[in-house]
Amino acid sequence: MSETVGFIGLGNLGLPIASNLLDAGYSLTVYNRTAGKAAPLVEQGARLASCPADTVTPAGIVMTLLWDDESVESIVMSDGFLERLGTGGIHVGMSTISPEMAKKLAAIHAEHGSVYMEAPIFGRPEAAVARKLTVPFAGPEQVKERVRPILKAMGGEGLFDFGEEVGAATAVKLIGNFLIVSAGQSMLEALTMAEKNGVDPKPVVDMLTQTLFSAPIYQSYGKMIAEKQYSQFTQSKIPLKDVGLFQKTAQQVQSPTPISSLLHDILESAQKQA
Amino acid sequence: MSETVGFIGLGNLGLPIASNLLDAGYSLTVYNRTAGKAAPLVEQGARLASCPADTVTPAGIVMTLLWDDESVESIVMSDGFLERLGTGGIHVGMSTISPEMAKKLAAIHAEHGSVYMEAPIFGRPEAAVARKLTVPFAGPEQVKERVRPILKAMGGEGLFDFGEEVGAATAVKLIGNFLIVSAGQSMLEALTMAEKNGVDPKPVVDMLTQTLFSAPIYQSYGKMIAEKQYSQFTQSKIPLKDVGLFQKTAQQVQSPTPISSLLHDILESAQKQA
Repeated sequence: MSETVGFIGLGNLGLPIASNLLDAGYSLTVYNRTAGKAAPLVEQGARLASCPADTVTPAGIVMTLLWDDESVESIVMSDGFLERLGTGGIHVGMSTISPEMAKKLAAIHAEHGSVYMEAPIFGRPEAAVARKLTVPFAGPEQVKERVRPILKAMGGEGLFDFGEEVGAATAVKLIGNFLIVSAGQSMLEALTMAEKNGVDPKPVVDMLTQTLFSAPIYQSYGKMIAEKQYSQFTQSKIPLKDVGLFQKTAQQVQSPTPISSLLHDILESAQKQA
Repeated sequence: MSETVGFIGLGNLGLPIASNLLDAGYSLTVYNRTAGKAAPLVEQGARLASCPADTVTPAGIVMTLLWDDESVESIVMSDGFLERLGTGGIHVGMSTISPEMAKKLAAIHAEHGSVYMEAPIFGRPEAAVARKLTVPFAGPEQVKERVRPILKAMGGEGLFDFGEEVGAATAVKLIGNFLIVSAGQSMLEALTMAEKNGVDPKPVVDMLTQTLFSAPIYQSYGKMIAEKQYSQFTQSKIPLKDVGLFQKTAQQVQSPTPISSLLHDILESAQKQA
């Protein structure tokens, strides 16, 4: 609780997570490109930083929850960020980025005496509010020990340790997001077939999600599809970006990508229709 | 219990199901193309029929659990089958066939005074032994009422009524099998990517199946993939046949098939490598 934590990125997930850390007693210094978003946190006791480096306490912990590789890298490379963090400092990356970038960030931090660890987050904003996130994480043992109470304060019981090598948890995050998109698009294809055959999709979803597919993903996406709310998801830029990262990461190690490549094409078309 | 039931098709699922019906007190007359497979059932008290029509009690119930459209149709059209079943007779089709064939069988039976109802089965042989099957079913209300105790004796609590129109439950069965194949192949693609990135697939499966994908299908197929036992499944002819039926059924109603078409291609290649 004595930690002062820097928190950068106050989007749909960042806001409730930062709020839960404040509730847990952490002192937070927050930064967001659009500063206005920080207002509820400032009211809750957070300090608003004027630039990314201003969130950093020397030898402290700073967390980022941003859009993509480039946005995380630009924060790390911003004026004074690495210099201020310095020896003993920890950067906890929570964004969905490429394992390649995660390793690059680890190397950059190592050059400056600080350590990068990864803790990307599975969960919708409601799950963040409820502290029911799934968080695969990886990084050097000592660093994880220091960060674990913070992860627990934001994620609850859903912490999964993927070892010391940075990149592993990020790969796991891409795997999860690819499987989510695959499950969603497959259900869309299946339930469209049902409907066009005169079979109401709702009881189909009910049966599947009570039996073979009794998992949160099938329950929530099945409901969205049956209620014609699913295009919100395919037209968002997130699945397209994440399936693209999965595909690129697989291709870099000559791992076959038939399904992810097809899904990427499908999502790209959905974007054009949006 | 007073029903004498005909049971045709004693494969990996048929055998344990027939055995459970005998245990439940039904008198069974069984038939299988390879008669030797019936031996344990005969020992348990079943009568062995010499031909399909010989399983039929006039105005009785006869159940089929066979390989495909053609094998079910050939039983129904075999000498004396329809004539013997006659008015008040019920044929319960449990095979995974096309909705088109299910409707055709319903029409053929109607011409002969008998009724066809469908009750295709989800479940591995172990689940059949344990009476933990998932059984979507459809057919005329009165017929379902008479058959329901039999379905319960074989499937337990997993019965799902999809209305009176034959074809609906068969479509649902194809949907389920398509989603199973899609989940399996997507996990294979995902876990291969993990492994080639130096990430052990086992803890990845553990995390996913404890959280977002906490469903029986992901648990059993994830385990198979992590233990390198999955090619048994892709090299079996069942997923190829069923994804093909899904695809054909969808195409007949102009429902898009991007994922099922890709999966069909992938499974066809896997067959060639088998």
